[in-house]
Amino acid sequence: MTQTVGQKRDAGDEGVRAAKPRAAKRPQPKLPGRQDWSSWPHYQAADAGFRGYWYPVMFADQVGERPMRVTLLGEDIFVIRDGDRVRGMANRCPHRGVPLSYGNKQFPGTISCVYHGWTFDLETGDLKAVITDGPQSPICGKVTQPIYHVEERLGMVWIFVGDGEEPPSIDEQLPEELVDNAAVLGARIQPREGNWRFACENGYDEGHAKYLHRTALWRLFKAMPVWNTTRIVKRGRWIYRVQEEQFWEADFPGLGRWTGLRWWRIKPPKNTSNIGNTAAHRETNPVIAAQEFPGFASVSMPGVLRIVYPTFIHYEFYVPVDADNHLYVGVMASFAKGIKTLPFYAKYLGSIRWLFHGQFSGQDKWMVEVTDAPPEKLYRPDDALLQWRKLAEDVTEDRIDALAERGIAVPDPSA
Amino acid sequence: MTQTVGQKRDAGDEGVRAAKPRAAKRPQPKLPGRQDWSSWPHYQAADAGFRGYWYPVMFADQVGERPMRVTLLGEDIFVIRDGDRVRGMANRCPHRGVPLSYGNKQFPGTISCVYHGWTFDLETGDLKAVITDGPQSPICGKVTQPIYHVEERLGMVWIFVGDGEEPPSIDEQLPEELVDNAAVLGARIQPREGNWRFACENGYDEGHAKYLHRTALWRLFKAMPVWNTTRIVKRGRWIYRVQEEQFWEADFPGLGRWTGLRWWRIKPPKNTSNIGNTAAHRETNPVIAAQEFPGFASVSMPGVLRIVYPTFIHYEFYVPVDADNHLYVGVMASFAKGIKTLPFYAKYLGSIRWLFHGQFSGQDKWMVEVTDAPPEKLYRPDDALLQWRKLAEDVTEDRIDALAERGIAVPDPSA
Amino acid sequence: MTQTVGQKRDAGDEGVRAAKPRAAKRPQPKLPGRQDWSSWPHYQAADAGFRGYWYPVMFADQVGERPMRVTLLGEDIFVIRDGDRVRGMANRCPHRGVPLSYGNKQFPGTISCVYHGWTFDLETGDLKAVITDGPQSPICGKVTQPIYHVEERLGMVWIFVGDGEEPPSIDEQLPEELVDNAAVLGARIQPREGNWRFACENGYDEGHAKYLHRTALWRLFKAMPVWNTTRIVKRGRWIYRVQEEQFWEADFPGLGRWTGLRWWRIKPPKNTSNIGNTAAHRETNPVIAAQEFPGFASVSMPGVLRIVYPTFIHYEFYVPVDADNHLYVGVMASFAKGIKTLPFYAKYLGSIRWLFHGQFSGQDKWMVEVTDAPPEKLYRPDDALLQWRKLAEDVTEDRIDALAERGIAVPDPSA
Repeated sequence: MTQTVGQKRDAGDEGVRAAKPRAAKRPQPKLPGRQDWSSWPHYQAADAGFRGYWYPVMFADQVGERPMRVTLLGEDIFVIRDGDRVRGMANRCPHRGVPLSYGNKQFPGTISCVYHGWTFDLETGDLKAVITDGPQSPICGKVTQPIYHVEERLGMVWIFVGDGEEPPSIDEQLPEELVDNAAVLGARIQPREGNWRFACENGYDEGHAKYLHRTALWRLFKAMPVWNTTRIVKRGRWIYRVQEEQFWEADFPGLGRWTGLRWWRIKPPKNTSNIGNTAAHRETNPVIAAQEFPGFASVSMPGVLRIVYPTFIHYEFYVPVDADNHLYVGVMASFAKGIKTLPFYAKYLGSIRWLFHGQFSGQDKWMVEVTDAPPEKLYRPDDALLQWRKLAEDVTEDRIDALAERGIAVPDPSA
Repeated sequence: MTQTVGQKRDAGDEGVRAAKPRAAKRPQPKLPGRQDWSSWPHYQAADAGFRGYWYPVMFADQVGERPMRVTLLGEDIFVIRDGDRVRGMANRCPHRGVPLSYGNKQFPGTISCVYHGWTFDLETGDLKAVITDGPQSPICGKVTQPIYHVEERLGMVWIFVGDGEEPPSIDEQLPEELVDNAAVLGARIQPREGNWRFACENGYDEGHAKYLHRTALWRLFKAMPVWNTTRIVKRGRWIYRVQEEQFWEADFPGLGRWTGLRWWRIKPPKNTSNIGNTAAHRETNPVIAAQEFPGFASVSMPGVLRIVYPTFIHYEFYVPVDADNHLYVGVMASFAKGIKTLPFYAKYLGSIRWLFHGQFSGQDKWMVEVTDAPPEKLYRPDDALLQWRKLAEDVTEDRIDALAERGIAVPDPSA
Repeated sequence: MTQTVGQKRDAGDEGVRAAKPRAAKRPQPKLPGRQDWSSWPHYQAADAGFRGYWYPVMFADQVGERPMRVTLLGEDIFVIRDGDRVRGMANRCPHRGVPLSYGNKQFPGTISCVYHGWTFDLETGDLKAVITDGPQSPICGKVTQPIYHVEERLGMVWIFVGDGEEPPSIDEQLPEELVDNAAVLGARIQPREGNWRFACENGYDEGHAKYLHRTALWRLFKAMPVWNTTRIVKRGRWIYRVQEEQFWEADFPGLGRWTGLRWWRIKPPKNTSNIGNTAAHRETNPVIAAQEFPGFASVSMPGVLRIVYPTFIHYEFYVPVDADNHLYVGVMASFAKGIKTLPFYAKYLGSIRWLFHGQFSGQDKWMVEVTDAPPEKLYRPDDALLQWRKLAEDVTEDRIDALAERGIAVPDPSA
């Protein structure tokens, strides 16, 4: 006699197999400091990014007549060039969920899904034809695929992710000096692990540069101060870190002296400057001088960092891919003109790109990957982080109010 | 003074570390179409396959005197040759959970677990000896390992997975023409990612072949129609796709003309045939003709596809491994006899195996991996899918009723 | 007209995307035997190890002036050499969660976090300085990092993981004969997959050696008995497996004869010995003889195995890394002195290390990886396992009582 699985089972016998025994939950020792980010509910909720902004996702010359897949704020999107525009559309074909980015253009101005030839208008998202259902397919006109607003600026493709509102002009979101002045740019786009907020906080963080980056080749001949005093100043959309006093050596009680000064390094300046993070040895470019930046490091929503040097400005855009990944978009801009741009190109290609965008920024990348907060125990220099979180919170409250006036309700974690 | 982890913890302090802050759940925009498969509750529940059927799992000549491990409908099984039979048994040794497939035969007709020598009768599942507990081991006769019914057919090993009922004869489940006629077979078994239902729906799907496979080398010299009209006809255990009109060119409003015709391709036939998916250029084999198939594509439970050509029949068995994987079992059968079988062998080895079972079928494999439904928005040609789901639903209802009459109750998701 | 994601969404529309349809839970057939380990609640809860013990984690000569990261009982720890001591500390910097093991010593007796230079005293855990906040940083003295007790013994570094109690002397936990006698050691530390309890139960398990290891090269010339009779005896902290009768051949009813005897193997002894697992052919070392061990295999908390041979003792420490991984620490000890230690070295390096610590132990490693219990159906020789679980249970009850008297409450899964 043979017997088959379950033959002996009584009909009423639930017989659910016991779960593997696991440890009784041991109460974790409470860590010092802040246990969560509930003081900033919008910020806490924005693990996959803030909606209502334009984000750079790739270089413009990477986008051609074939769809390019992008994940942005957790959304699956493709972009494609169509005539003189780049178009963006939700990537999931509504028929059976196959990515439209596997398809191609069968007719101008459209994308056709690789599986059954569902064909969408790139501008409107309307289903214009289903090839395998013939010209009279009754489904046409009844399905519209979500589309995204897309712009090209600074040699990159930018996508707006919102909640159904008409997007603001991208020029209102770009750093003002880049809209009003011609600039020469050097850029790097790099996918990185870690939450975009850790990347942004690392960028604006006052303290780490002096210690973490002291070993970077970029700083080989320039000392960093041990510590300094700072205040945060708000002007327009930006908050600025204003350096007050810089200390180049320090005696730590019971431990000893610590300094970044070395005989082979340039002697630090006597006065604290707010152009360049340690000194302004040379003439400041007139465009940069005209901005009268209160401090050399500033940040604005939705995660844009600006570091002002005498002859160029460095920007970092922290673009949320999803809760665990972001794009690092580093841009160096020079406002020199004509023949004067040559030294910038030379400096960028010969040094900045490798030392700054490379090894120096790689130290930041490493820290962003391993930062694990909250819990967190903040210290005095972290006031920069607190001000940034407050900025994000305030601006987001304003946006929610503005959307509500237009009849668009979005989830409000602070309510 | 040293201090150890948790020393400062008050006894009553729960101090559970806060979870990482995650985004407030944003309501997803409702996608068009069907949100779930609750219209077909049995089908929806059968993500790891339908019970009560025979499934092919490997070639018969792969099974020898050493156990071979198989996962089928999520169950961990081994098969082993024992004399003139192949036997199947649950793979988990009841002693400590070690796979019996790591063991071997210490006595004829038995399997011994590699760890402690628990020895089970391959035919009955009874524990016959525990080598390390001696001849009088008191546990013998008190443990029976679940066994599986196993058969060999078409050069493959088939396992029955049921709910304790006596299995039906495997001949009642095989395609009738393969039971009643001698056939020459060419087969491929390939593990594939993706749910078995997507594989089966892809196989019976009317629309995709015309568009997705238009680029397959298998179709290099034969055009596919743009679209056609179809009806589904039920006969016995099978439902058939009956082709009515075929359209070889189409003008899509506002977009333009689309066709698969090319100058180098064979001119399509004037009349629509239901032997071969586009045409019947040649004499039909008498065995195939005698079946009088209403349509060239048919499907039956538990996921068997039959595509009828003039000189051979192609079958696909979609075997559920678990909810995320299946076995693709493709079989080509020729009913030619004697010397006439030679062209089939030549055609199979020289072309079918590589072009059809290979690249053409690889396009299906790709789609099955990336299909992501529901949600799904079905269109007119998907009537084939709807009829297949209805067939699965009806047959399963009948099976549950028949089991209930025999006193075997199984979970009924439709209740 | 363009349309953006979600534009058509009504404010009140939840529109949560339906979860993928999954199978209705099918009741699993109840497996024979014990469904869980609730008879031993402390043991069941100790999937990541028992607290209150010293554990070996690496060789002492692996620890220098750079921090070494260790996971022990699921806790993230680093150890570092500081003068004549090895220190241990929780690895997570309280500031932003970055591992302190990425940092280094900026001042003697301290570790500085790589990110912002938070500097902790290695002995006390006190935050002594934050380099980037200057000498008057107000946070100093307000944060203390948890530290661990660390000792060096037997050429290895041992860490105590407790619940805040003062640790017992490590000498109270080491095998007594290793504390009181000079010994020559050969050791291997190997990270292994699988729960530490499966490793310990495998080590003390009476049955498997006779069957699983019969194919080990270590046993090439020595037969193992088919089965034997045993009793478990407790003495002090240890329980001993006492061998009574050994059976070298057996006739299994209905199956036939089974034996490990072969013509090329040494003839087994007439009498059962309890020094060495099968025989005591040679003179026993006086230190070993003086211990008067009741049985050749013994085990004690928190998972220490001792196998006594005439001329050496083999120990295994099963060190819980987390619920799914452990360290296998195998130690061979010889109590010979002077010139007599040379044969031990020769035997260890020439044979024991490769055959015993290598291939033989690799068979155990394999079984520990694939054991999957409970459910489990135990048999007569598993009395050794039951006694070990009872020992763990009793000793843990005693520890909880002793901690309670000192005012330290720990979770009690048996309550």
